[in-house]
Parts: sequence; structure tokens; C-alpha cells
Amino acid sequence: MSAPFFGDLTPLRYEGPETDNPLAYRWYNPDQVVLGKRMEEHLRFAACYWHSFCYAGSDPFGAATLERPWFGGDAMDAARRKADAAFALFDILGVPFFTFHDRDIAPEGGNFGESLRNVRSIAELLARKMEQSKVRLLWGTANLFSHPRYMAGAASNPDPDVFAYAAATVKNCMDVTRELGGQNYVLWGGREGYETLLNTDLRQELDQLGRFLNLVVEYKHRTGFTGTILIEPKPKEPTKHQYDFDVASIYGFLCRYGLEREVKVNIEANHATLAGHSYEHEIALANALGIFGSLDVNRGDPLLGWDTDQFPNNVPDMALAVYHVLQGGGFTTGGMNFDAKIRRQSLAAEDLVAAHVGGIDTCARALLAAARMIEDGKLAGAVQQRYAGWQNPAAQAMLAGKESLEAIADRVAQGGIEPRPVSGRQEQLENLVNRYV
Amino acid sequence: MSAPFFGDLTPLRYEGPETDNPLAYRWYNPDQVVLGKRMEEHLRFAACYWHSFCYAGSDPFGAATLERPWFGGDAMDAARRKADAAFALFDILGVPFFTFHDRDIAPEGGNFGESLRNVRSIAELLARKMEQSKVRLLWGTANLFSHPRYMAGAASNPDPDVFAYAAATVKNCMDVTRELGGQNYVLWGGREGYETLLNTDLRQELDQLGRFLNLVVEYKHRTGFTGTILIEPKPKEPTKHQYDFDVASIYGFLCRYGLEREVKVNIEANHATLAGHSYEHEIALANALGIFGSLDVNRGDPLLGWDTDQFPNNVPDMALAVYHVLQGGGFTTGGMNFDAKIRRQSLAAEDLVAAHVGGIDTCARALLAAARMIEDGKLAGAVQQRYAGWQNPAAQAMLAGKESLEAIADRVAQGGIEPRPVSGRQEQLENLVNRYV
Amino acid sequence: MSAPFFGDLTPLRYEGPETDNPLAYRWYNPDQVVLGKRMEEHLRFAACYWHSFCYAGSDPFGAATLERPWFGGDAMDAARRKADAAFALFDILGVPFFTFHDRDIAPEGGNFGESLRNVRSIAELLARKMEQSKVRLLWGTANLFSHPRYMAGAASNPDPDVFAYAAATVKNCMDVTRELGGQNYVLWGGREGYETLLNTDLRQELDQLGRFLNLVVEYKHRTGFTGTILIEPKPKEPTKHQYDFDVASIYGFLCRYGLEREVKVNIEANHATLAGHSYEHEIALANALGIFGSLDVNRGDPLLGWDTDQFPNNVPDMALAVYHVLQGGGFTTGGMNFDAKIRRQSLAAEDLVAAHVGGIDTCARALLAAARMIEDGKLAGAVQQRYAGWQNPAAQAMLAGKESLEAIADRVAQGGIEPRPVSGRQEQLENLVNRYV
Amino acid sequence: MSAPFFGDLTPLRYEGPETDNPLAYRWYNPDQVVLGKRMEEHLRFAACYWHSFCYAGSDPFGAATLERPWFGGDAMDAARRKADAAFALFDILGVPFFTFHDRDIAPEGGNFGESLRNVRSIAELLARKMEQSKVRLLWGTANLFSHPRYMAGAASNPDPDVFAYAAATVKNCMDVTRELGGQNYVLWGGREGYETLLNTDLRQELDQLGRFLNLVVEYKHRTGFTGTILIEPKPKEPTKHQYDFDVASIYGFLCRYGLEREVKVNIEANHATLAGHSYEHEIALANALGIFGSLDVNRGDPLLGWDTDQFPNNVPDMALAVYHVLQGGGFTTGGMNFDAKIRRQSLAAEDLVAAHVGGIDTCARALLAAARMIEDGKLAGAVQQRYAGWQNPAAQAMLAGKESLEAIADRVAQGGIEPRPVSGRQEQLENLVNRYV
Repeated sequence: MSAPFFGDLTPLRYEGPETDNPLAYRWYNPDQVVLGKRMEEHLRFAACYWHSFCYAGSDPFGAATLERPWFGGDAMDAARRKADAAFALFDILGVPFFTFHDRDIAPEGGNFGESLRNVRSIAELLARKMEQSKVRLLWGTANLFSHPRYMAGAASNPDPDVFAYAAATVKNCMDVTRELGGQNYVLWGGREGYETLLNTDLRQELDQLGRFLNLVVEYKHRTGFTGTILIEPKPKEPTKHQYDFDVASIYGFLCRYGLEREVKVNIEANHATLAGHSYEHEIALANALGIFGSLDVNRGDPLLGWDTDQFPNNVPDMALAVYHVLQGGGFTTGGMNFDAKIRRQSLAAEDLVAAHVGGIDTCARALLAAARMIEDGKLAGAVQQRYAGWQNPAAQAMLAGKESLEAIADRVAQGGIEPRPVSGRQEQLENLVNRYV
Repeated sequence: MSAPFFGDLTPLRYEGPETDNPLAYRWYNPDQVVLGKRMEEHLRFAACYWHSFCYAGSDPFGAATLERPWFGGDAMDAARRKADAAFALFDILGVPFFTFHDRDIAPEGGNFGESLRNVRSIAELLARKMEQSKVRLLWGTANLFSHPRYMAGAASNPDPDVFAYAAATVKNCMDVTRELGGQNYVLWGGREGYETLLNTDLRQELDQLGRFLNLVVEYKHRTGFTGTILIEPKPKEPTKHQYDFDVASIYGFLCRYGLEREVKVNIEANHATLAGHSYEHEIALANALGIFGSLDVNRGDPLLGWDTDQFPNNVPDMALAVYHVLQGGGFTTGGMNFDAKIRRQSLAAEDLVAAHVGGIDTCARALLAAARMIEDGKLAGAVQQRYAGWQNPAAQAMLAGKESLEAIADRVAQGGIEPRPVSGRQEQLENLVNRYV
Repeated sequence: MSAPFFGDLTPLRYEGPETDNPLAYRWYNPDQVVLGKRMEEHLRFAACYWHSFCYAGSDPFGAATLERPWFGGDAMDAARRKADAAFALFDILGVPFFTFHDRDIAPEGGNFGESLRNVRSIAELLARKMEQSKVRLLWGTANLFSHPRYMAGAASNPDPDVFAYAAATVKNCMDVTRELGGQNYVLWGGREGYETLLNTDLRQELDQLGRFLNLVVEYKHRTGFTGTILIEPKPKEPTKHQYDFDVASIYGFLCRYGLEREVKVNIEANHATLAGHSYEHEIALANALGIFGSLDVNRGDPLLGWDTDQFPNNVPDMALAVYHVLQGGGFTTGGMNFDAKIRRQSLAAEDLVAAHVGGIDTCARALLAAARMIEDGKLAGAVQQRYAGWQNPAAQAMLAGKESLEAIADRVAQGGIEPRPVSGRQEQLENLVNRYV
Repeated sequence: MSAPFFGDLTPLRYEGPETDNPLAYRWYNPDQVVLGKRMEEHLRFAACYWHSFCYAGSDPFGAATLERPWFGGDAMDAARRKADAAFALFDILGVPFFTFHDRDIAPEGGNFGESLRNVRSIAELLARKMEQSKVRLLWGTANLFSHPRYMAGAASNPDPDVFAYAAATVKNCMDVTRELGGQNYVLWGGREGYETLLNTDLRQELDQLGRFLNLVVEYKHRTGFTGTILIEPKPKEPTKHQYDFDVASIYGFLCRYGLEREVKVNIEANHATLAGHSYEHEIALANALGIFGSLDVNRGDPLLGWDTDQFPNNVPDMALAVYHVLQGGGFTTGGMNFDAKIRRQSLAAEDLVAAHVGGIDTCARALLAAARMIEDGKLAGAVQQRYAGWQNPAAQAMLAGKESLEAIADRVAQGGIEPRPVSGRQEQLENLVNRYV
């Protein structure tokens, strides 16, 4: 059943590329088999509470523009109306997953206990709704950044009481996530960073963060939660400098605190580009380091310096991202989450639905392109051929540490080794990619 | 003795802030004691061969503009004239150290052996010159990026012969560095990165880099070299994406290949800002992670997106960098290297000398400011006070891992913990800093 | 009289560089004569309502953190309490000017008429307060960006009713500004830009903006307002692309609509750097084009891509800005406005006061440095000498258009003209600047 | 005839999207009629001498990598071999146009006269070659930035002799361009900007530039050249700040010197993004201001801060650019120039050809997409509808200046005008665009 906000919209259908219907899928066909797996299982789409049901259209220079029937009135009533609308959207979109922050689904209470009860109460409502819907929980997370208590960080706060408060909040949110069958639990370090080094003890804050994450991992194991713990990289905003800057930074952090086998990353396109990396770089690097987990697919604007969180719409760009996901073996517990917000001028319910349709179709079309790349094999073949020299036993031995620097130097000096450059073929490979997209 | 290029310039003197002499130090007074140590010992300045004697003024859109008496003619003759000029400058500046790439001091030969002999031959000349000069070697390094053979990387090259060639080159350069009494050996991953992911195997290249660096460390220990092995972070340029992106990335890389106790970082101001970090951030982070080594002090232009390598001239900015160096205990084997190039319109010998004078005075003035910050203690005191809560035994226990997530959650729920935000006082601390600079 | 918010703070005094008092001026000494004019007359500081009294500490990821006694309750009552606090701060700071948006001083009403009456009512209160204070009005402006009606622009809105509404609002705000003795009237094109070209008619919107500005100028003349009409450049944020991108863009816009002699620019440091320009570039260019008007002195963070609006604190940077203001003849109706916001963690009243103290002292110190540059004359002398060749009669004739391209070509071919490059002396000039700051 | 460098390559053919031939066009079918015009006439492709025949693969950190048979030996011989190779490529590609700098086609001589004769001599060779080829000249231009004499600018140089030298050079290059039937003459202000404001007189330099451009325009009219004079915007690099920053800056400059009806812009994708604008923004703005001329289609890398000059390969991005070209009426004398350089690792002749094939196909595919947008009309219809209110007579009158600010204010106050926001439909329009690409 659709809530009134979405009018009489019924679940969207796949109608193929030629359809004129703006509220039908042109490329996303859940049951279509691609590389031996159904599209739905490949892409594991999730709609999110956060931007789609909590964002009211304000920006640093302007007030809310989006009028939603679930805003206003008694806070718990509003939370229930919001849940109705959210599940209506999930059903209209036909996405297999959803995601939330604790604060998205239930209001802050007058004290910790009341906040906790609010979340529990709505979580029970969600559980009932999930019984009547096909949607499952991709991940839950705790909002440790909006409330003023977190203005100087949650786990990295100079006040240990804030650390404790954040820890208690995460415990509750992990419980709820586990009980709702969540397949992952995410930590986004919204305020885990600093505004100015002048008042910051970097080492102390890193140690706090390391402890916090270990608490989470220990609790996961104690409670038998089988989902994946995910960290989401972001370089800056809201803070001047966030500790979880990018995939490489997080990997170092995980090593430092003994967690590199316990925690994986949830990579967002917009955060990747704000850190100066392409989306596919972050995915490929996470694969190389063994910490790839899940994706937020919202893009930034390459000409703007803040988080615009736009729905993805560039198929060639997304195709490379999906290609690297597939090259790494595809998702296990992760998926593609639309942590994307409609523009503040997109007032209508139809805008919200259409935005998801466009994003989902972009990803589906990207999957088809990436599958063609893989089936054809020319792209991977070109890479393999480029490194073929390393398959020689002598090269393998050198890489395995069986030759000292002196021995290598002797070999070069005496063997007359004079390497000859060969073409990197970048443009030819770019052309090749354009055959598939 | 000054070479003709520098005319009749004699060693520069400290003349104090009021002097009108553009070729005298206004702030750098080597023997002045600051925080119990001579300025010279604090700052450990180095002039560099690379930009000061090899850069000819070309840029991607224009030809060489700088005419130097040591350019042209027989390559080995030119190298000897260059050495004369370099030592003349070192003596004029009175800096205690210099730095070089192998290719800076001696020309590429027709094959590996000849290149090696060229370097050895000039190294012997440098050794003789060092006997007659007070200047010592801060570090040596190998140029593994200018020659076409390295166009696709040195250690990370798809061709194992290039890896071997680079390894042999580094061995030679380490030998020369050790023999000249170098206090560090630096690796800058000029081409260790990729131009396009389409032809790149990230994991393979990282493994190659890890092996390469281990070869270097093993060789260091075998030869009894007591200097520090340094890596220099840089995020991009010349490649689209460099593996040694920033301090945090390097830390993760070192952990992955078991080197976090063996290798430290040489941080450049310009590279820090290109990576999206402040210089002081990179220094503070390296301190926090225990991998701080040395500095290149050349700055970028915050409005330009490439490596401008300008001489530092903003005292307040540099003061914060030096403050963090001092907070970390100051330099051990490291120092402040002027990897800075004069503008291509700065044609005169006097420009080259004056550029160093300005940079050295900027750093000296920054040292005086940083020393005042430390002596006054208010800045560090404000930080200490901000984290004071963590000195409580309960907080210490929580940080030490003696309390589970459940126990913390219980404590919050039952204890009625409701943290109250306190001011971060950023503007007040910025004002405080302005008292010292 | 100070409002309770500022406790028992009394007007700040100049106590000189050595004072330990964080709430005293160390450099700003209003009556000190610099280059023949009192500091106060040079700098013409203004405090602003907008950030200092309306900003509550929220950001895109977090709720309000700043609790102010003038927030909440009946909106007009709150506006009056706010005016009390604002004038208390003005008096404490001793700044000669203040600035406001209509919406800063008075709340939006239920309809246009009520909004208008709200503004008028508070304006009368301000007038009475101004009688008892030394503070005067630097400029007023209308907030045409916060209300949802302006989400797609004010003058550039696709809906002509919004254009009309904005015009009516500006008329009212101009009236109030004139009646309060404002020395300028400012237009900041908050939403005058686009979010996506896909729904935008650039030419139509530019024509609307041109008409709007002409309406303002015509009205100014009709009402005998003798202040200056100012436009404030900003490249992006809140919109993806703002029409008033930078000084050069605005100059072209003014020419297109016949306004280049009627309108000047109010240049903000943060907006300059977001557009890819240095602050001093924008000032120097406005001087060169004859459209320099006034300054907002708030800086950005060169490593962040959004408007951080921080209080200025880098003296060398500000000194170059002030140098160019003085080179252009100094302010006439303009001044230095602190359109700067304290960090959201700076909760205390003392933070707000100290932030202004730091910013004011930075500007005062910059003035002293710039005055030294001018008195010494070496900097201007170096520029003059560099272009000295253009004083030759032949060069003057060529520049005046008295020689054709053919004639010049003949002269070059026959005269054997072969220009020789001379040093640009950049580093030497940078060193020279460092003598003054 | 193909020169040996390109082996036995014969002119490329259109083989359709399904071909496996990497050196055939998959989308560019010159004779295919699109929107009533042949593809070739729409797109007017040009290959360029500059990057394709002069770039040797060097970058700021590395030496030349590209070995070309036309490099080396006697300079004029080399220039003739280069011309052979260039025309071989033009014929292989089948592009209707080519472009050059004077210095690309002929070497610098020992003095002005010799340089001039070199250019004339090769120009005669090109004329003969053009008789035997279908390729025509899109535009010529003079290289006023590579030689050291231009290090401080050409027209904007502090030395009037450099101004004169540059003027004489441009006269010669205009003559050659006219004689070869060039359809435009381009000025790119390579060094027209500054490195530091400290040594720069902005107003003087702008006046010099204004005079220079007027000399060019006067000469054009005197010689009866019917081509278009074009300026190419670029914000920075090689200089810190270029005067021809972007389309809006150039428009203001043209107005200031009375040239807005005489000169148009040649817009490069890479330069647009370095200035913080999208390519389509610059095209749309040039159309709105009536100064659109021609395109360089080389793209940048949104994550790099320098001019990478890559071949275009993203169809959706290019489709929007072409859409705006078509909306403005399409090219008249302009065209699409490949001012794109292959990567320095792309060593093979095949790389150079394939790079053009990829770029040409990207543009052709973009044209097909843009044509679909126009034929469908929904995109333009949505824009028209959004501004429909401005078609009302009252709105038209207001826009035409027939209503004063007071009258508008009265109308708002009395008419109870309360505008209601309507959706901007950004995501829906983005989805719509994705139907065409």
C-alpha cells in the first residue's frame, strides 16, 4: 500500500529502454540474469531513510523547502507516519534493501533512556512492516554527529562522557540492526576529525577511535552478529579534517589498532572525489587491500567542493565502478545504497521517485556494460599481458624476496639489462571501454 | 671560494631585522640559542642540487630561461662545473647540509655501468669538496622518474627489468650516500603510481613497492648504514595517482609490508597541500604515528593545482609547522631542505641567493615564534586542559579496554550521563598564536 | 550599556602588543595616525548582524549549538532583544559601523505587508539606538535567498512574481538603509545562479538581473540616495553557479547593462579564493577597472571547498589586501565588514568578542605593514621601473593606437629588435614584503 | 600517401558500432545526415599540429618519451618531414580541417627575419600539400609563449619591444593564415597574465592587451580577412593568473576595449573546468553573450589541477556540450579542434591514430544524442515552460523597464502577490537526458 504522499503510485515495472514512462525502469530488470546471477542479486540496491525522509531541503543559506506529511506534530507520531511513507517508497521502488540511522527512524528523547526507547519502539514497528514487505535491512548506523553533544566528535571527543554516550548509543543501534536482520553495521565518523589542530591531540583522538572500534568488534563477536562492520571514508565536511579520510588512511588506521581483518569500508562516490580519488580507485584499492565492503552510490559535482550527494547519472563513470566491484568478486554482505538527496528545488513526490529510478537505471546500465567488459575479457587481458614479465620465475623470485639488492645490482650491471619502454595504450583502452558503455 | 657565477659574493652574515642589505640574514643567526639549542642545530637547513642547479626554467609551455655557466658542453665537465657552483652557494649560504639525486650530480651514461661510474666519479669530487667545506650531506636519493625507462614506474613498473634496474641504481646511490656520510636516504616515488587504472594491477604494484622498500631496508642493515630511510609523500603529479599519497597512506603501506618501524617520512609543504592537508597536519600526524623524519620546506600556491615548489615566505604558516616539529622533539637525522625552485623569470644569480635568504629567514623567524609558543606554554596548556577528563581513572580504564560496550552502555543508561558541550575556543587560540608570530 | 549576554564587558581598549589581556586591542588604536589619517578612518570596520547575531551554529550535518538569549519566543520580541545585544557588541568593540540584511533585524511576517512593517518597526528602534551610540550604518541589504520563494533565484527567478516580490523587498530595504544614513546599499546574489543548466535560460536570467539592477540604480537616483550601490561577487554556493562569479564577470555584466559607472563591488576574501583568485587580485582588478567599493574581510580555508567565513588571522595575507586598497586611494563609502562567523564550537560570548578582537587586530597590523610598504616606496618603485620602457614616446604612441600592425612589424623587421629577458625578481620582492610584515 | 611513421595505414572508414576494428570509426559517418546537415558539416573536426606533432612526451618530471621520425636533424628538414607526417595523419583521419601555431610548422630562426622566412617557406609547402588533400585550415595562431622573450608576457610584457615583436609575429601569422584560407585566427594568451602581483601593473597590462587586440582587428579589416578573430579562455597555467580567465572575463575585457562585436571565443573543455565551470556552461554563456566561436574538445581530469589535454571520451558530458552548440545555431566559421595530447606512455603511431578515433567517435556519438534531444524537444520544452510566466504582458513590461521599483513594490503590496515555489525537476531532466545518450 502506498501512503498518500506518493498518491496512487504502484510498484514500478521494468518497461525497457524504449518506454516513455518516466516512472518505469528502462534498464533495471531484477530478474534478468547477468554473468550467471540475477540483476537484483548483483546490485543489491538500498533506499535510505536519511536523505529521502529526513532531508527537508535546507542548506547553509536557506530554509527548508520540502513539505512532507510526516514532518511536524508529535515526534513519535511523525516517526510512525515517516515509516509508513518510507515503506511505501521501498515497495514502489522494489528495492531489496533499506538503510537508516537511529535518529532517522526515531526522535531524540529527553534523555538517553528515552532516546533508546524511541528507537526500540520504532524498530518494532519496522520489524512488523518488514514482515509484510520484501525489503530487508542492508545496514543500520547511529547518528553521532547531529546533536550538539557531538560537536567536538563522538569517539574522538575530548570529553570521555561523550565517548561513553556514543558507545552506549552504538550498542543500542547494533542491537536493533541485529534484531532486524541487518547484513552490516556502519560507522560514519561524521565528527571524528578536527576543526583546528590548535586545540587537538591527534594521537589521543586516534587512540580513542581505535578503542571505540575495538569495542564494536568485540561486541559484534560476543553477540554473534554475523554482519560486516563497515567504516565509511570521508576526507572533510563537516569537520575540517576527518580521520577516516579515504580507503588508504582507514587501512593504516585498522592496522594500527589490529582491525584490518575485522572491518571493511563503505565507499561513497562523493567522498572519494572530495578526497581527490576516483570512485573506481577507492573500490580497486579496497579490493587490493582486502577491505572492500559496500557502496554509497551518490556522486558529487566535480566542480563543487562540498558534499552534494546527487543521484548518479553518468553511465560510463558508474560502469568502471561496477567493473571493479565485479572484478573483486561482487558484493557479499554489501550493496549499493542511495545515500543521495534530491535537490532542494525538487519539491514533488514524483521527483523523489524519479530520482531513484534514474539512479537505479544508471547502475543497472553500468552493470550491463561492466558485464560486457568482463565477458569480452579484452580489458583484463590487456592488464595481464602488461605484467606478463612478472610471471617469469626470476621475476617471481625477486618479488618473493629471494634476491638481495646486491644480487640484483650485480645482475643488472653484468647482464646488460637495459629496459625498453612499451606503450601504455591508455587511449586504446579508453576506446575499448567505450565499446561497452 | 665563490665560483664566478655568484660574482664576488662572500658568505652571508646575520645582520638583524633592521638591515637594508637584501643579501644578509635578518633572522637566521646560527649561533643564537633557542630553547637551549643553537638555531643551526634546530633547523638543520639543507640546500639542494635538484632545483637550484638542475632546473633551467622550462615549464610545460616554455623553454629554458635560466642560463647557467654549468650547462652545456661535455656532460662530465659540466657536472664538475656544477659541483663548483653548488659548493660555492653552500658556502655563501652557510647552510650545514646539502641534498642530491644521483642524476643531479652526474649525467646518465650510455649504459648502466657508465651511469654508475659517472656518479661514483663525481661523488669522489664531492667528498674532496666536503673536506674543504663545513657542509655535510643530509640525504641522497636516486632519480627514478626522469628517464623514459621509468615512464610507467620504477619499483611499480610492469616490467621486472625496470624494477631490477631501479634497485641496482638505488644500491649505488645508497652506497654513495653512506660513503659521503649522509644522514638519511630518501625515496620519492616520482612515477610510483598510475596514469590510468585501465592498465594497472594495483595489488601487484603495491606488492612490488613493498618488496623494493624491504630490499632497501635489508641492505641498509647489512651495510651498517645508520641513517634513516625516508619516503616522501606526494598525492599526484607526475602521475595521476601516486601510491605515496600522504602520511596516512604511507603509514598503512608500511604496516602492510612490515616496515612501520624501519621507515619514516620526508614531508613537503607543497605535497601536503596538494593532498588536501595542511603542512602542520602532516607533521603532527607523522609524530602521532611515530614516523616523522624530515622536511622539504617548499610551499605550493593554494590557488594552483600543481607543484609550484616555491620558497616559503609566510611566517605564521611556517611557525605552526615548526611548532609541531618541536612538539615532537625536533629533528634527529632530518632537517629542513629547500627543495624549492626559483621562478623561471628569476634569471640572476642574486635571485637564487636571495630566494634562499628569504626562505631561511622565514624558517628562522618561525622557529623564534614557535619557541615563544612553547616557552609560554599556554597553547599546549589549552590542549591539555581540553582532554583533562581522560585523566580520570574511569576514563583511562575505558580507553585501556577494561570496560565492554555493554558495561559502558549500562553506565550511561543508569548514571544519567548527559554530556554538556564546552567551547572549543578556536578563535581565542588563533589570537593566541598571533601573539607569538 | 552591555546586554546581559556579554556580562559586564566594557568597551575594549587599546593596550598595545605586549598586553596579556585577551579582550584588549593589541594593534588597533583608532586614533593612531597612519599615512596622515586616523586608523579608524582608514579601516572603517563594521560588525555584522548576519553571522554574529543570526547564526546559531548549525551546519549541513548538525543542529544549532549556540544558545543566545535573543533566540526564541515571540519573533518581534526576539528581534528587539537581538538589537539590544547587537548594539551592546558594537559598543564593546568600538567599531564605527554595522551592517544588516532586512531579515537579520526583523522576522518574516505572514505576508509581504507584515514583513515590511516588521522591518520598519525594528528600523525605528535601530534609529533610536544609533542616536545613543557612535555606530553608523555601513550598508543594508535584503535577504533574497533564505526563504523558499527564492529557491530558484530572486531577480533571476523563472517566475516574474518572485522578481516583483524581490524588487518590492529591495525597495523597502533601500528606504530603510537611506533613512538610517547607510553609506552603501549591497546586493548579494545569493540564489542568482543556477543549479542545473538543464532547466535554465541563461540569457533570459541575465536580462532579468540586468533589469533588476537598473531598477535599483534608477530608484537610488530618484530618491537622492548618495550611497554606493554594491554587488558582491561569489562564484558558487549556495547555487552550483552564481552569475556574480568574480570581479571580472561582474564588470562584464555591468558593461552589458550599462551600469559600469553606477555600481561597484563588495569583495569578500572567502569568495575571492573560492573563485580561484587571491583577495588582493580581486581588489587590484577592481581598482584597475574602476569599480572598487568595499570589503568583507572573512577568509576561507584554502583546503576546504565551501564558504567557511572565518575571521581573518594571517597578517601577511591581509597586508597585501590592505596595500592594494591604499594603492587605489583607500575607502570612500566602503569599509571592512566582518561577515565572519565564529566556529560552531565557540559557544561563549567571550568567543564572539575575541573573534572580532583578533580580526580587527589582524587588519590593523596589516594596515601598519601596508603603510610601511607605501612609505618606503621600494615596492611601487620596483613596479614602476619594470614598466619604465613604456614611458618612451614611441612606446606611448604604440599604446595610444598611433601605429598600425604593419608599421610595428616593419619596425621590428628592419630595426633588428631582439628583446632580452630581464629578471622578474619575484623572490626578492617577496623578501621585501617580509620586511614590512 | 601515408608517411612511414603511420606504416601502411589507409584512410579510416566508418564501420558502425559493431566493428571490432580499433582503427575504424564506429560512430563518425561524415555523410550521415543529422538534423538536415551532414555530420562532417556539423562537427567540422580539426587535427592539430601542436600536440600531435610537436609534443615529445616530456613533463615537468621527465624527459621526452616519444620518438618521432620528424624530430632531430636540420630544423627546416625536420619541419618538412613533420609536414609530411601531419598531412598523412590528416588524410588517414579524414578530418576536414587542421590547425597550427607558427612555431609548430617552422623552427625559430636566428632573428626575426629568419623566423618569418621559415614560417613563410613551410607555409608554401603546406599550400601545395593542401592542393592535394581535402583538408582545409580551421585556424592559425602564433606561439607567443614558449620562447624566453615571452616569459613575462607578449602583449602584456613590461617591455614594449616584446609587445612590438609579438605584434610583428602575429601580423606574419595572420598573413599566412589568410593566404592558406584559414577560417579563423586565434589568440591564446599563453603568458598574458602574471606570476606575482608584486611586480605587476594590472591596469597597464590590460590596456596593452586591449591595444594589441585592436591592432589585430584593425589589420583584419584592412586586409579583408573574412575569418573570425578568436580568443581562447584559460584561467591559469602557465601563469599564476591569466587575463583571459573564462568567457565572462573575456566578455568584460572585450566591452572595455570596444571589441565585443569583433571577437569571439574558442572554448576548451579543459580550460573551462580549470576555471571552475562546466564545458557546457562556457558554451551556453558564450551563446547568451553572442560571442561563441569555436571549440577545443580536449578534456581535463576533474581530479587534477593542471592542463592534461586528454582526448574526450565521456559521451554524456560531450552530448551536453554539443547540445548547447546546436541550440546556439551550430558552428559558422568554428569547429571542433583536437588540441589533445596523447599520454607520454602512448608511444606507438597507432596510439596517436586511435586517440583521434576515440575522440572523434565520442563527439559523433554526442552529436547523435544531442540531435535526439533537439528532435524530441522535451528538454527545450521544459525550459520554455519554466519561464512561461515571463511571456505575460505585465512581466514583459516589467522586464522592458516600463515599471519603476516603486510601482512594482506597490503592486506587490496591494496585489497580495505571494509566489509559490514549483519543482525545478532537476533529476527528472537528468533522467530525460539519459534517454538520449
